[in-house]
Amino acid sequence: MVGKKRWAIAEGYVPETSHGPEPEMTSHETVCVLNATGEDAHVEITVYYTDEDPVGPYEVTVPAERTKHVRFNGLDDPEPIPKGTPFASVVESNVPIVCQHTRLDSRQAENALLTTVPYGAE
Amino acid sequence: MVGKKRWAIAEGYVPETSHGPEPEMTSHETVCVLNATGEDAHVEITVYYTDEDPVGPYEVTVPAERTKHVRFNGLDDPEPIPKGTPFASVVESNVPIVCQHTRLDSRQAENALLTTVPYGAE
Amino acid sequence: MVGKKRWAIAEGYVPETSHGPEPEMTSHETVCVLNATGEDAHVEITVYYTDEDPVGPYEVTVPAERTKHVRFNGLDDPEPIPKGTPFASVVESNVPIVCQHTRLDSRQAENALLTTVPYGAE
Amino acid sequence: MVGKKRWAIAEGYVPETSHGPEPEMTSHETVCVLNATGEDAHVEITVYYTDEDPVGPYEVTVPAERTKHVRFNGLDDPEPIPKGTPFASVVESNVPIVCQHTRLDSRQAENALLTTVPYGAE
Repeated sequence: MVGKKRWAIAEGYVPETSHGPEPEMTSHETVCVLNATGEDAHVEITVYYTDEDPVGPYEVTVPAERTKHVRFNGLDDPEPIPKGTPFASVVESNVPIVCQHTRLDSRQAENALLTTVPYGAE
Repeated sequence: MVGKKRWAIAEGYVPETSHGPEPEMTSHETVCVLNATGEDAHVEITVYYTDEDPVGPYEVTVPAERTKHVRFNGLDDPEPIPKGTPFASVVESNVPIVCQHTRLDSRQAENALLTTVPYGAE
Repeated sequence: MVGKKRWAIAEGYVPETSHGPEPEMTSHETVCVLNATGEDAHVEITVYYTDEDPVGPYEVTVPAERTKHVRFNGLDDPEPIPKGTPFASVVESNVPIVCQHTRLDSRQAENALLTTVPYGAE
Repeated sequence: MVGKKRWAIAEGYVPETSHGPEPEMTSHETVCVLNATGEDAHVEITVYYTDEDPVGPYEVTVPAERTKHVRFNGLDDPEPIPKGTPFASVVESNVPIVCQHTRLDSRQAENALLTTVPYGAE
């Protein structure tokens, strides 16, 4: 089976400003989730902050044999994630998934990108 | 033996536009494959989408002791990968290989880069 | 438990100059630490150089269920890390943590970003 | 012991051109090596190409408790690595080391960065 059931992303930051056409060039912080299994993945994301208790779970479903690019900017239940604030997250799923963490930062006129495969726990 | 036989890339996106001289500065999404073994690698790539069934396999051969930078933009059998669309991929090989995922994004005047080693399954 | 007790970051470099508003756009080299355990993490960072003996430990506490974005620029005990100088680091903790290494480079007018999950040892 | 004795970097590319002051802003492709052991690391790099036999080993020594940022641009024995050409590499050491792969691309006026921890084999 491809993937793990628990992932941790130690870096998180939604830039406060953007340049360029929306939504393509809006600054965003994303976790891309691949569910290559034959069963729907029920994903729960817990968000950790510097000075506050963790918030969550944020619930996302990724259907069987599908991928979903989840923008942290778009999560709002139980509450939106504040912009310009450092955070981290743990992603848990009932079936093995593969995660990748990506940011598009368009605070300045030219966009910058970063990506990594986060830490995959058991 | 250096590598694994199955890799998963949870992030995929071919930018729709580019700036600068082609093909060097054309926006592209690439999986770099290293085959350090003494045997040809027969590589099969399956592409996953948000709302559609997976498409594949796309077949690529990487000869023994060679590397190949495979642009997702250039894959067209069984069908081209649409630009500006989120996708993910699973890369499988008959011999151990090493993969790395890289994007050059030249939608704006100055290019941005990202790279990571994807998730290596068994 | 999510994480490992020892991490190694083979790349390190604090750019000497910056463009844009401080501190958001100040060039920086960061290790983001997530402590998802219920116990405070006492973190010790040792810095390795090209031509000098290692320096450290730099001590950082990351409380239980919190994250901290540690800028290498900000470490000054036992001594500041010189700008424009290659270094590497080993991060050790009494409880499992997850690390991610990120740089914002604003030496030129448009910022560039890089990130990766460093090497997690036992 | 922190590290592994064999690493593989599937992506490699030395940009042909640069903008900005040398050598800081010269486009470069780097493998950063951390040797946290008490013994000198004798490192051998083999370079793989798309259409040619592998070339190497390139030999580099990283002293005990030191780090070295090795620019592929600077390797010239047994032969220089051509610019603008895709390659990959395998890095082997007599003692455990930690590697990180970084590129500064200054072909356009604003630099772009990428980094990742490569694949660590046994």
